[in-house]
Amino acid sequence: MIIVFKPKTSEEDVKKIQAKVEEKGLETHLVVGHDVTICGVIGDTTKVDPRDIEVSPSVEKVMRVEQPYKLANRAFHPEDTIVDVDGVKVGGGHMALIAGPCSVESEEQVIAIAKEVKAAGANMLRGGAFKPRTSPYAFQGLGSTGLDYLVAAKKETGLPIVSELMSADDIDEFNEKVDLVQIGARNMQNFTLLKEVGARVKKPILLKRGLSATYQEWIMSAEYIMASGNENVILCERGVRTFETYTRNTLDLQAIPVLRKMTHLPVIIDPSHAGGKWWLVEPMAKASVAAGCDGLLIEVHNDPEHALCDGAQSLKPKKYTKLIEELREIGKVVGKEI
Amino acid sequence: MIIVFKPKTSEEDVKKIQAKVEEKGLETHLVVGHDVTICGVIGDTTKVDPRDIEVSPSVEKVMRVEQPYKLANRAFHPEDTIVDVDGVKVGGGHMALIAGPCSVESEEQVIAIAKEVKAAGANMLRGGAFKPRTSPYAFQGLGSTGLDYLVAAKKETGLPIVSELMSADDIDEFNEKVDLVQIGARNMQNFTLLKEVGARVKKPILLKRGLSATYQEWIMSAEYIMASGNENVILCERGVRTFETYTRNTLDLQAIPVLRKMTHLPVIIDPSHAGGKWWLVEPMAKASVAAGCDGLLIEVHNDPEHALCDGAQSLKPKKYTKLIEELREIGKVVGKEI
Amino acid sequence: MIIVFKPKTSEEDVKKIQAKVEEKGLETHLVVGHDVTICGVIGDTTKVDPRDIEVSPSVEKVMRVEQPYKLANRAFHPEDTIVDVDGVKVGGGHMALIAGPCSVESEEQVIAIAKEVKAAGANMLRGGAFKPRTSPYAFQGLGSTGLDYLVAAKKETGLPIVSELMSADDIDEFNEKVDLVQIGARNMQNFTLLKEVGARVKKPILLKRGLSATYQEWIMSAEYIMASGNENVILCERGVRTFETYTRNTLDLQAIPVLRKMTHLPVIIDPSHAGGKWWLVEPMAKASVAAGCDGLLIEVHNDPEHALCDGAQSLKPKKYTKLIEELREIGKVVGKEI
Amino acid sequence: MIIVFKPKTSEEDVKKIQAKVEEKGLETHLVVGHDVTICGVIGDTTKVDPRDIEVSPSVEKVMRVEQPYKLANRAFHPEDTIVDVDGVKVGGGHMALIAGPCSVESEEQVIAIAKEVKAAGANMLRGGAFKPRTSPYAFQGLGSTGLDYLVAAKKETGLPIVSELMSADDIDEFNEKVDLVQIGARNMQNFTLLKEVGARVKKPILLKRGLSATYQEWIMSAEYIMASGNENVILCERGVRTFETYTRNTLDLQAIPVLRKMTHLPVIIDPSHAGGKWWLVEPMAKASVAAGCDGLLIEVHNDPEHALCDGAQSLKPKKYTKLIEELREIGKVVGKEI
Repeated sequence: MIIVFKPKTSEEDVKKIQAKVEEKGLETHLVVGHDVTICGVIGDTTKVDPRDIEVSPSVEKVMRVEQPYKLANRAFHPEDTIVDVDGVKVGGGHMALIAGPCSVESEEQVIAIAKEVKAAGANMLRGGAFKPRTSPYAFQGLGSTGLDYLVAAKKETGLPIVSELMSADDIDEFNEKVDLVQIGARNMQNFTLLKEVGARVKKPILLKRGLSATYQEWIMSAEYIMASGNENVILCERGVRTFETYTRNTLDLQAIPVLRKMTHLPVIIDPSHAGGKWWLVEPMAKASVAAGCDGLLIEVHNDPEHALCDGAQSLKPKKYTKLIEELREIGKVVGKEI
Repeated sequence: MIIVFKPKTSEEDVKKIQAKVEEKGLETHLVVGHDVTICGVIGDTTKVDPRDIEVSPSVEKVMRVEQPYKLANRAFHPEDTIVDVDGVKVGGGHMALIAGPCSVESEEQVIAIAKEVKAAGANMLRGGAFKPRTSPYAFQGLGSTGLDYLVAAKKETGLPIVSELMSADDIDEFNEKVDLVQIGARNMQNFTLLKEVGARVKKPILLKRGLSATYQEWIMSAEYIMASGNENVILCERGVRTFETYTRNTLDLQAIPVLRKMTHLPVIIDPSHAGGKWWLVEPMAKASVAAGCDGLLIEVHNDPEHALCDGAQSLKPKKYTKLIEELREIGKVVGKEI
Repeated sequence: MIIVFKPKTSEEDVKKIQAKVEEKGLETHLVVGHDVTICGVIGDTTKVDPRDIEVSPSVEKVMRVEQPYKLANRAFHPEDTIVDVDGVKVGGGHMALIAGPCSVESEEQVIAIAKEVKAAGANMLRGGAFKPRTSPYAFQGLGSTGLDYLVAAKKETGLPIVSELMSADDIDEFNEKVDLVQIGARNMQNFTLLKEVGARVKKPILLKRGLSATYQEWIMSAEYIMASGNENVILCERGVRTFETYTRNTLDLQAIPVLRKMTHLPVIIDPSHAGGKWWLVEPMAKASVAAGCDGLLIEVHNDPEHALCDGAQSLKPKKYTKLIEELREIGKVVGKEI
Repeated sequence: MIIVFKPKTSEEDVKKIQAKVEEKGLETHLVVGHDVTICGVIGDTTKVDPRDIEVSPSVEKVMRVEQPYKLANRAFHPEDTIVDVDGVKVGGGHMALIAGPCSVESEEQVIAIAKEVKAAGANMLRGGAFKPRTSPYAFQGLGSTGLDYLVAAKKETGLPIVSELMSADDIDEFNEKVDLVQIGARNMQNFTLLKEVGARVKKPILLKRGLSATYQEWIMSAEYIMASGNENVILCERGVRTFETYTRNTLDLQAIPVLRKMTHLPVIIDPSHAGGKWWLVEPMAKASVAAGCDGLLIEVHNDPEHALCDGAQSLKPKKYTKLIEELREIGKVVGKEI
């Protein structure tokens, strides 16, 4: 961390700030120039908020050099984290191929889709039981019953289950029924939920990126979960909000190589939510694999036109099967087995 | 709602879509042109998601004409809503003057500040007890103890208390101790919390705008609370995220006249969080009053340089006192009593 | 400027970077910590691009402390700049009250409007002759003829003329006919035009903020004009692009106090373009004056429903007259004579 | 185009609006519902600005159904456009492999790089002679001399030349020396330049996307060029501005499949500018090919650490050579010959 003083700050005022910082167990080093005095701060600065120092009238600017996260930091954990989802490995070269309907609608539906995506090559089944909807009048999901249908589908196919958790009240049920617990984009900074999930969820977590979140904010949310006790976090890019309205969101594939540098956690891509249109899924899934992702979360529905939710962005099983075949070829080129 | 069909769609396909829509109790009216067929849909369309119709291969585009919210809609409730916060009226010409520290730090601190802001003219006391922080290593607030200090300050001053609720688990305590329950920007789309708050909180709600939320998304979140049973909602603009990094966020004062058209709920402004710098509070508070807001939420701290949180954006009590005096003059010009 | 080296960078590599920087006539000061080495750079760093140093494999990050502009910088020019527009002063307490139609349509129209806005209190007349339109099929303005109509209106009313320059080819004509030369938002980073304008335009410049420009980028564009020879620049905030689509753009009034700190140039507000709706002009104009702006640019049209361009955001003369009266009252409160 | 009237609009007012629209040679069709009256407008609506109708007090909303562009529209030109750049075909399965330095620095430099990129497989040479820089104090390019060096490099290698045009004054020189004339992101809405380029440039145009431009705005800029006489336009995605500051911009690869639907023009990708870091080029180039782009514009420099501009995002020739080999393999999977 670097503190830049205002021109002509008195020696005394500089010392006051140094003392304030050193109280927190940090070291300070001064550089005194003709016009500007600068103070380098060395030590664990994660607990210092630059704005709390900037409030002093003698301080011009405080700049953070170090990342404000530790557990998720690649610098302190150079090896790729490999997350185990009920036997399916994700990260470090292992690909998560997660597929299924946006919403669970019936036992028959979800079992039928599960069988088809498994045959296509998927290794996990997703399905929404508790649904975050922007309108209180929209279908809110089947809830517990939906989870039971997913469990039934797992019995038939063996595919581990991925589903979104919206309330800490449901943690016990998710611990029992779900294999990979998703935290949705709109809850990425629901810090209460993140802490509870870190402390009480016994399964790995799939943390979606917030709609307007920066990489650092996203990793800080992973850090919340990890600092609370659960280090098995998978990050999922699902598009960010931009001025473009033709697509639902703009998929940010630079996230893949950048997060690889910043963190050791696996990074997967959800091309279905990003674009919001089924015909964008295929080219974006291919691009994601080419860019080196650790997995794909894709909506598949056997009857998209009558889906209760997000049919517009769902692939039919046949298209998914063909897609996986093509991804396999791209995977070969970039050294990923699909 | 208007459905535009793709060129050359068969009559049969058009009828299928009409049937699908009419099933939901809506009326349809066709316009058949040379190149384009258009279908007007009339009735309560709040339960229809345009994307669920757009998924059909014969549909080009579905456009909503009506607003997707009812309870918060000015069209169905032309009178301004006046919210009563333990005797203090907000809306319809009545101004909320809410002030206090970002975080409650001690009983002495909060009582001292409460007395000063009351003397200055404030009619409610704010103070954070449960704090949403982007870092798990930052000060997270005093929790219940913090609320007790606020209650003590209310005993001394009579000022109703405003504080942020982060978890549905704390609702009973907030019902007992807090007079206006704040939902923070990062929880604006925490739909589980919104429903619980609507159903169980017996006090009015202060709903902050999400960092990248549109007006409609924000009102839909108010609609969640109202549809769940609590119609006493005050909206609070606190800046939106833009590319500008000099300020914390960009304060959107157009929100005041626009929301006045869209909804009957009161709209107040938080200039402290928006700019993130104390010297922006004064000009922005004046601008807010000139633009016709129903109140102001301002951070006041007796020792900003040693505040545990957000000192940089807090006014000292003297500056707040002077500000209120100036606002009073502007209020006179625009017909608001301060 | 501060250079942060990667952990374990060799002394030799550090010296190489120091030498590279010192070559440009700058001084360097090292801080060597346990883990991190930091180098403070002192001197005129405006010619150094941080990214050119960051490219070195031994460098972690380069951070600028100083502003990259000089001529527009308040730090080197503490007094407010007062720009003289054919006798009308702008800045340092003097308000520009610019009004007129989006597009000049006929001599009668522009003379009629000019008389009305003058009577209301306006001190400059605006009118578009060369129009930037997003569609090649939209009305592109009357060009030179439009300027002649404005000149005729000036003859009748004495109001100095404000109009947008889109091409360096028209500079001679603008020097002859126009008193305040506007550079539009979409040309804010048309660097060729900025240089030509700085070198050859003999009248003051009104520089609009780009749709997604930061304060610093905007000031850098002013710096381009000033460094090329014309220091009479007025900045005009006209809204920035956000995710909100209800309004045309989001008006950023924090720009007023922030630019006051960053630069000595006058700052005026265009509430008509920002909101894109006439009924937003009144509250936003009041807010702008309350926040301390140096002037207002407002679209006034005698027949908005039949305007060839942007009628939706134009005030009728009567409404403008009433608005000026109300602004005068707010001006009194904040110490500005209107 | 669809016009929605306000509830209870009189028949007379509706007829007035119909008349206004029909004057422009368009047909209108009314739908009269209980609460809402809607008017469908059929015909060539490119010359109608929805806001000009919305200004009427009886109109609630005007929505465009048709695209506002014709020449660039895939609907009226279903075949892919293939642009011929001095013998090198781009589009319709033909890939542009454009490489070279950000800035031309010397004849030796550009010839050396040209030879290396040609050997690697590049089929065009890029080099900046006129440089758009945000600071007036930054290196602005070698200008005409730079173009001459590029011509020399073409003599040696046969590679067609790509360079950015910043001023209409330079069109004659560009017609003589340059094979593909680039319009930069910051000039995407410099409508004066677009018209001049359309009317007078005899070579194909490479139109970069503006930093915050939507797809439609971008295509409208292409339409400007086409409507002025030059239909050989190639679109180049180079990243859009988002809140992420770790990367220079966010590369939007959904642009590839979406533009494929909207327009028949070729779409190429510039991964160097998007990310601003050389190590992002490789994964993003692969992703671009996998997503189906028509070409890549990549910065290659023989000594990035001493480049006069944008060294941080330039590949060394060896890395470029290796990248092309890998892209060739991905090309095989998606049916593109590289």
